[in-house]
Amino acid sequence: MNAQRYFRPNVQALQPYVPGRQAAPGKTIKLNTNENPYPPPPAVVEAIRQAAGGSLNRYPDPLASGLRMAIAKTLDLPGPEWVLAGNGSDEILTLLVRGLVGENQQLRLPTPSYILYRTLADIQAAQWDEVPFEPDWSLPDSFWQSDPNVRLVMLPNPNSPSGSVVAPEEIEQRSQDLHCPLLVDEAYADFADSNCLDLVRRNEHIMVSRTFSKSYALAGVRMGYLVAQPSLIEQLIKIKDSYNCDALAIAAATAAMLSQDWLSDVVAKIRTTRERMWSRLQEMGFDVLPSQGNFVWCTHPSARHAWMHEQLSQSQILIRYMNYPGFGDGLRISVGTDDQIDACLMMLQRLVRQCEVTS
Amino acid sequence: MNAQRYFRPNVQALQPYVPGRQAAPGKTIKLNTNENPYPPPPAVVEAIRQAAGGSLNRYPDPLASGLRMAIAKTLDLPGPEWVLAGNGSDEILTLLVRGLVGENQQLRLPTPSYILYRTLADIQAAQWDEVPFEPDWSLPDSFWQSDPNVRLVMLPNPNSPSGSVVAPEEIEQRSQDLHCPLLVDEAYADFADSNCLDLVRRNEHIMVSRTFSKSYALAGVRMGYLVAQPSLIEQLIKIKDSYNCDALAIAAATAAMLSQDWLSDVVAKIRTTRERMWSRLQEMGFDVLPSQGNFVWCTHPSARHAWMHEQLSQSQILIRYMNYPGFGDGLRISVGTDDQIDACLMMLQRLVRQCEVTS
Repeated sequence: MNAQRYFRPNVQALQPYVPGRQAAPGKTIKLNTNENPYPPPPAVVEAIRQAAGGSLNRYPDPLASGLRMAIAKTLDLPGPEWVLAGNGSDEILTLLVRGLVGENQQLRLPTPSYILYRTLADIQAAQWDEVPFEPDWSLPDSFWQSDPNVRLVMLPNPNSPSGSVVAPEEIEQRSQDLHCPLLVDEAYADFADSNCLDLVRRNEHIMVSRTFSKSYALAGVRMGYLVAQPSLIEQLIKIKDSYNCDALAIAAATAAMLSQDWLSDVVAKIRTTRERMWSRLQEMGFDVLPSQGNFVWCTHPSARHAWMHEQLSQSQILIRYMNYPGFGDGLRISVGTDDQIDACLMMLQRLVRQCEVTS
Repeated sequence: MNAQRYFRPNVQALQPYVPGRQAAPGKTIKLNTNENPYPPPPAVVEAIRQAAGGSLNRYPDPLASGLRMAIAKTLDLPGPEWVLAGNGSDEILTLLVRGLVGENQQLRLPTPSYILYRTLADIQAAQWDEVPFEPDWSLPDSFWQSDPNVRLVMLPNPNSPSGSVVAPEEIEQRSQDLHCPLLVDEAYADFADSNCLDLVRRNEHIMVSRTFSKSYALAGVRMGYLVAQPSLIEQLIKIKDSYNCDALAIAAATAAMLSQDWLSDVVAKIRTTRERMWSRLQEMGFDVLPSQGNFVWCTHPSARHAWMHEQLSQSQILIRYMNYPGFGDGLRISVGTDDQIDACLMMLQRLVRQCEVTS
């Protein structure tokens, strides 16, 4: 007898979200999960070391008040009550689905985008309404259509894998028709030219989620947050675990938020490397989208993406191979250090030549 | 217009779980949330400091494999696949409710016990079937009755606030009739004379949750775990966030798990203080239950519990005042250091005398 029968049918049937491969650090060039290749701000390491010698036997602040204040101040929000800290922005997404979408109700999302959204709907025994991006990565009208059964819309902006952005003006205007909340998932917004924070102040139905995993180089620490109007934050506080963020992560993220000069420098470096990747990949014959994230999405006319991914992997260079049903496949390469990217590009160049010889 | 209308009706109606008050460390004697009064094992602080200088820009191990192995080895389990690490044992409870109990299905729990269980059912739009303990804190037959709509039973053992224990033999025998999984919440088991780990090996429907917050003095770090048969763990892995435990917490908990000598010493100290509290409170005229946790539940014939709690609070001594509908109220006092407990007992002695004078 198998104990899985105890679980809800939607959970038994669930295809789990598979995160990008982790590897022992050191040997591998890891360009597959959009991590920051640089170490976090020095103030973060010091803050963690101090917190480690503090009162770890005591429960942490349930609301991470100090961090909320630092975020509100840095982002020029009206106050800390506009912020909810979460155990990674994945937890923020989970809380939103649990709070807003009941069984058999719908979560709307664009595709190709972050696969986790669908998984979260499945866990909830909710349905997902997947709207394909247009070929130019703009959103079709149907994405903005009101539907009483759609209780939440999620829009990653910049989107992954494409790195494309929907303009804040369009989001503000078109989302008025939705009649349900819209989450703009801004995991990559620090690398972009625009963001939707201003929209949250003016629109009670627009929320923005952010993470410390990418731009702040703190994927290991698990900290994300939601920016939304206080009446929404209040409801989410009721459903989060009492102590969802640990004392060390709170200390780390607070120190990171106060390291804005560090952030500007690192983001500038990553953007520079990104543009270089873009040019070089184009020169090699890839179709490359201009990216607003810390990664680049590319396809090659040979379409031998899975093979290229495998060859790179054998050379200890991990990038992400993505294959979306009804859309096609391609390669998503995180922006690493210049050395890492040089190694990856050199290897790709060799693979492209092999494709040309055999075709 | 209030944006809370977007939320599911069960969430709008939710009365949030209110955790015990946190206070600035230093001035206050904090005996209200069953924290460990002693600092965590020295190896933990060192492990965190090392991890802080490591690869925090990288995502943590999604399954916390090293920690699972340390737990499996220490608890003599067949293997790491019998363990699931969670962001505090609260997350373990949350995952179980989400995985097993659908809308309008039931979660069974005893009362008075941990209020969070009810909250978790409410968030899920599930119902709770609350079964009162007998006056001697044993479980009535109805707790073990099979019901197709009851999809999960939660039993805190030792229970809070009572500190009482249901014998593992009784749990194993009676739970055979349930036809659904039983979670034995062993947050306090390290302070008790018995536990249910052996039952998990023999029964696919029995699971045990544990936490590092109490006995290991790591409430600030957020780490708990589930011990269950691998086919159950597999399903839960599908519904947890990919990176639910951060790298620092994993390092801390692994070091704690390897500090078994420290654990024995600290648990012995706490048990000694607990027995002293028990005797002294009895001498003062309290009705005190023998406790198997790191806290003592007591009531006084004067029934002026709320007043005593308030008076202590004004003297910077925080204990927990509990009032359960249909059961009554009382005081739950966490086992602190001997000095903290002396201060609390002295103050209580004074308050008891005032009651005697005025009655």
